[in-house]
Amino acid sequence: MEELSKNRIKYIRQLSQKKFRKKEKRYIAEGAKIIEDLIDGKHPIEMIYASEEAYLQLQAKAKDNNIEIIAISEASIEKVSQLTTASNAIAVIPFKEQFFCIEELNHKIAIALDNIQDPGNLGTIIRIADWFGIDHILCSKDTVDVHNIKVIQATMGAIARVEVHYLDLEEVLPHAHDANIPVYGTFLEGENIYNEKLSSNGIIVMGNEGKGISPKIESLITNKITIPSFRQDKGSESLNVAMATSIICSEFKRR
Amino acid sequence: MEELSKNRIKYIRQLSQKKFRKKEKRYIAEGAKIIEDLIDGKHPIEMIYASEEAYLQLQAKAKDNNIEIIAISEASIEKVSQLTTASNAIAVIPFKEQFFCIEELNHKIAIALDNIQDPGNLGTIIRIADWFGIDHILCSKDTVDVHNIKVIQATMGAIARVEVHYLDLEEVLPHAHDANIPVYGTFLEGENIYNEKLSSNGIIVMGNEGKGISPKIESLITNKITIPSFRQDKGSESLNVAMATSIICSEFKRR
Repeated sequence: MEELSKNRIKYIRQLSQKKFRKKEKRYIAEGAKIIEDLIDGKHPIEMIYASEEAYLQLQAKAKDNNIEIIAISEASIEKVSQLTTASNAIAVIPFKEQFFCIEELNHKIAIALDNIQDPGNLGTIIRIADWFGIDHILCSKDTVDVHNIKVIQATMGAIARVEVHYLDLEEVLPHAHDANIPVYGTFLEGENIYNEKLSSNGIIVMGNEGKGISPKIESLITNKITIPSFRQDKGSESLNVAMATSIICSEFKRR
Repeated sequence: MEELSKNRIKYIRQLSQKKFRKKEKRYIAEGAKIIEDLIDGKHPIEMIYASEEAYLQLQAKAKDNNIEIIAISEASIEKVSQLTTASNAIAVIPFKEQFFCIEELNHKIAIALDNIQDPGNLGTIIRIADWFGIDHILCSKDTVDVHNIKVIQATMGAIARVEVHYLDLEEVLPHAHDANIPVYGTFLEGENIYNEKLSSNGIIVMGNEGKGISPKIESLITNKITIPSFRQDKGSESLNVAMATSIICSEFKRR
């Protein structure tokens, strides 16, 4: 069992900063379960530091995939873990090259996120996408960073199976128009989603937690929809964006 | 503008403990928005401590409802706030008498929670219930306390409109059977919720985050349902309980 060197501890800790991740093109995922999912998803893991227990769990799979794995002390893990309760394993992972071309959406659905700020919400939305077999999430450039450890952990491993792209939505959505791909967005005055004909392909845009979809993106929405509230009197003003995403994806996919 | 006395600070702080809340039959809610919702919902607020700004916002409504309101310094609020970022107002609220009788469910839906542990999940489920016009949530006695500040805040005010009851589900569910009220529960081997005929009344049981519905409660379920995953290959093992609740409520209510 090894101890981590001071330099290595410093390096891993610095990966908690977005700026440093961008420079190094690497991020951290924690916990044997997520790391296993990432290996299964052929993510290019560079190195795994594991507690004795997690080492036994991950060792065979890591070796099969030529991934270096080292057992380190719990004390060393605690020094580098970004979680309140330290996990049992830490992986250093180079960014994966991902490609997205709009023609994929001739037969598929993608989710677009306009300035989602809460890491838990982004993580949960990735998990929802995974459940409903949605392969791509298109994030506006001001959306919270997917490689933030809180996002990675909130995906519960779904990050291994869903591709998350950072794009200028104002540039991308007109390409969807050109290709006759519908662009859906939720607005209070939209059509009732339960009665609306929903296509089997398209982009579903979800807006910022407080401000909703921004005016610039709104002008690029082709189909406005809404989830009606069942309260007659004054009730909830809005559903949380992750809950709304789960209901909308369920509506699109069940048909 | 007043300062809070040492005794008062101690009293409010102690209300963060479940044991003390139970003894005093009082709890805390924070933030002008939630407090306004609680006043609108005729909850019996005993006292509001507000920052100058929140005082101006709440004052008229508090007086109309004979609720005492005092402006206190931000420093005093910080001393008693249970939130990481102190709120602008704190209310001390006696428990509200709530009644639930099974016959209400002849024409309505209720949610039952079997040992939900995460305060955020309970708060979110209350918010979902509010959105879908569901008036009652029946919690097993080992479910996290609804008066936990994290639950109250996560409801975003929905707590003002949804009644949450703590009951022995093993005692209550047989009464539903006697009254011919269906009891739904989600299980991997259940019927596909998108194809299943769903009644306009009944109890929907949601299980613990890790363990699902307990065996004792499972034996009292009359209709097993499932939300199918749309991944053909190995994918997410489960939806988070709050996401599953939003999808299930959406399915019940849209029909």
